[in-house]
Amino acid sequence: MKYTEPYTIPFFMATQKGTASLVTLVNAMLMGSEHQLDQVGAGMTQVLSRGIGWVITQYELDVKRMPKVEVPLVLGTEATSYNKLMCYRDYWLETTDGERLATMRGAWVMMDLNARKVVPVVKDLVEKVGAPFSTHVERFKRLSKIDRVDREHAYPVRYFDIDPNGHVNNVHYFEWMEDSLGADFLANHELASMKIKYAKELPVDATPSAQVQIEGLTTRHQVITDGVVNAEAEMTWREQ
Amino acid sequence: MKYTEPYTIPFFMATQKGTASLVTLVNAMLMGSEHQLDQVGAGMTQVLSRGIGWVITQYELDVKRMPKVEVPLVLGTEATSYNKLMCYRDYWLETTDGERLATMRGAWVMMDLNARKVVPVVKDLVEKVGAPFSTHVERFKRLSKIDRVDREHAYPVRYFDIDPNGHVNNVHYFEWMEDSLGADFLANHELASMKIKYAKELPVDATPSAQVQIEGLTTRHQVITDGVVNAEAEMTWREQ
Repeated sequence: MKYTEPYTIPFFMATQKGTASLVTLVNAMLMGSEHQLDQVGAGMTQVLSRGIGWVITQYELDVKRMPKVEVPLVLGTEATSYNKLMCYRDYWLETTDGERLATMRGAWVMMDLNARKVVPVVKDLVEKVGAPFSTHVERFKRLSKIDRVDREHAYPVRYFDIDPNGHVNNVHYFEWMEDSLGADFLANHELASMKIKYAKELPVDATPSAQVQIEGLTTRHQVITDGVVNAEAEMTWREQ
Repeated sequence: MKYTEPYTIPFFMATQKGTASLVTLVNAMLMGSEHQLDQVGAGMTQVLSRGIGWVITQYELDVKRMPKVEVPLVLGTEATSYNKLMCYRDYWLETTDGERLATMRGAWVMMDLNARKVVPVVKDLVEKVGAPFSTHVERFKRLSKIDRVDREHAYPVRYFDIDPNGHVNNVHYFEWMEDSLGADFLANHELASMKIKYAKELPVDATPSAQVQIEGLTTRHQVITDGVVNAEAEMTWREQ
């Protein structure tokens, strides 16, 4: 069941280039799915009332063009399938003329909030958005580990990095990963694609580091705290 | 000339409490004035084409209640008067029932972008939004200097702190000032009012510090870089 809604990225979310950042792009797309779930009675309140939470494991994103701020857009999303443990969801962002600017795919699991353990998908919740059951396990591209740290920067968790669930909102990893590339790189490149795999949640009082290996137009990233990897990512870039 | 528009703060701007942060509140209010100026042909493009820019000197904000995210709101703004050098503007945020949640007042000057000097107000631009000329200079409350640093935290400028004007967006000062209070203080208090005075623009590669003196429900703040004060503020709080 596809869901779309109009959205305009406000001017105060603009980067130096007048476009959305990766964080804003992902946040906007996720908002579409939150709204869809709310509409069918499978939103945060309903999920939390069962004592469970959604946990993202991987995203894959392709960006044709970073959207400008203050321009009307259309967000779309669809829960494409689920199996015993995973739910797959597509997200997209288009101009009002239907030009696809960005496409993302995510793989989610459900966690028992008390036991802090992954549990089987709660069928009636995912079926409310029309997600079909399929035994097929979707493949996400394997990420190469970084084998050299070209740049590293510490990002102590800030109060406003914590979301209403009381956790570090992992969308912030994107900001840290991009920022660690430095202003020169970011000023001269535009993001073309991003793949991220989440490994270990961050505690709220942590000082994670973003480490990056730069191989031309491919950058490999990890967010790491006291030797434990929180997430790994790969980004590809276009010269600008 | 009053201007209003509907706005809903998206879920991804939520703090731990499910409400807007000070940064989001101010950004939303400023968006109202940007849209008003755009509508009458006195927006950023027109101002920049004259080689000038707006520079905020002071804000005073009162908060009755921090707005929740995902709830329809109404933003309002009005350019209340101008004199030779200053423009004054009111901002407010209400529920759709007309309950006033927050009110802000700002004093702006215009700067020659080449000379980096304050210039007299360009009348035809401010008159487009119906601002009346008045020789009256509005008073803003004088801020007490901090005389003791209770907490201090460094906030190296990040790439995404820079806005399309190529400057550190000074709205970020609010995040640094609040964050420097620490999670315990912020979890147990809600902002009641804020007064800020801007002194010196931040260079893009700076590592400013936020220093704070806590006197019960009043906190006094400064953002300081290499001994130079960038901004001073005073906030009052309610226990929560």
